[in-house]
Amino acid sequence: MTPDACRQFSLGRRFLERLPRGGDLNRCIEMFCRRAAIQAAAFSVIGSVSACTLGVFDQSQQVYVTFKETEPFELAACTGNVSLEDGNPIAKTHAVLGNVKGKIIGGRIFSETLVFGGELDLQELIGDPLTRSYDQETGLVLWKMSP
Amino acid sequence: MTPDACRQFSLGRRFLERLPRGGDLNRCIEMFCRRAAIQAAAFSVIGSVSACTLGVFDQSQQVYVTFKETEPFELAACTGNVSLEDGNPIAKTHAVLGNVKGKIIGGRIFSETLVFGGELDLQELIGDPLTRSYDQETGLVLWKMSP
Amino acid sequence: MTPDACRQFSLGRRFLERLPRGGDLNRCIEMFCRRAAIQAAAFSVIGSVSACTLGVFDQSQQVYVTFKETEPFELAACTGNVSLEDGNPIAKTHAVLGNVKGKIIGGRIFSETLVFGGELDLQELIGDPLTRSYDQETGLVLWKMSP
Repeated sequence: MTPDACRQFSLGRRFLERLPRGGDLNRCIEMFCRRAAIQAAAFSVIGSVSACTLGVFDQSQQVYVTFKETEPFELAACTGNVSLEDGNPIAKTHAVLGNVKGKIIGGRIFSETLVFGGELDLQELIGDPLTRSYDQETGLVLWKMSP
Repeated sequence: MTPDACRQFSLGRRFLERLPRGGDLNRCIEMFCRRAAIQAAAFSVIGSVSACTLGVFDQSQQVYVTFKETEPFELAACTGNVSLEDGNPIAKTHAVLGNVKGKIIGGRIFSETLVFGGELDLQELIGDPLTRSYDQETGLVLWKMSP
Repeated sequence: MTPDACRQFSLGRRFLERLPRGGDLNRCIEMFCRRAAIQAAAFSVIGSVSACTLGVFDQSQQVYVTFKETEPFELAACTGNVSLEDGNPIAKTHAVLGNVKGKIIGGRIFSETLVFGGELDLQELIGDPLTRSYDQETGLVLWKMSP
């Protein structure tokens, strides 16, 4: 079995950023991309959040089951990419978080996920940008690849 | 204390890929590398799997203890590298996964780990490729460095 | 809401390194950076440790609550960056670790965290280096950005 499809990029600008306290994690990354005219990127974040919403995809029901946490968590791992959805740069972000009691949660990051302290490492990717659209087979919003 | 050894690379091609549903995670990455003639790479993946096998190395017994899960999990974090073993590109992949019940598992990814939806970000590394071989002291298959 | 500030870098050298057994994870990375004259970097690590100390920031008390583990764990995810503190390259590293019993822990890596087997992927970043200093509002040691 081989990948369905792939797209090749060249490396654009590289940024380290201190994310703003109180901002929503995905919205911060997306707004930064809009301002910097970035259409594709790969990124990671380390830091902590004061609240978060995580989702795990229920593959049989084709819906995300979400978990909402209203207390502080450390972003123990956080990785994602930026591509286009309806012409706008959208961050798709996965993460693992841990709190002071040793509780660990993991999945896809949704809003609201509020930054307490965040350090973003973002690599701009230059090339024909990927766009997302709904995939009926999986129920996911996937990159549309040319056949 | 300093690193035993290191190797310097220049940056080759960068790919974003949609991994095929039903494929084995490591095998997909390795087959892509063979087709694209990639001998060294660093990568991350976000997405979900329909089943997975994870391993944690038992450092005193020098064997991997493996956990097999036959239900869906989200790939909350997944990082790895590609180097050569017996002349073939081999993916070494570590990950943390979470399911809809909030269960979290983590370790090294083994086969079978079946992609449901996966987005691979792979950076080709160009230079003298690293090769793996068995290390008697640890029981691991490690990069062989020149003295 | 937008990022407070960001800094743009160009891509320097890329290294894959086998970290030395028994070394402290952050100290190994920092010593490597000093020897290679690296002032800014982004990195990830896969591997395992024989002991570790993790911290989660208590946002109301403004202190790190630390967890010390004296048994082996797999580094299931590990990401960080290097910037300057008092003129020296300092690694800030977050990680998720799992053991053979399926226990999962996550947060910021502190010393002592002792490498059993570790593979470091480090990207040097070239540009005006970021420096860290104490931030009274959060209690964190954050990147100082120009206004």
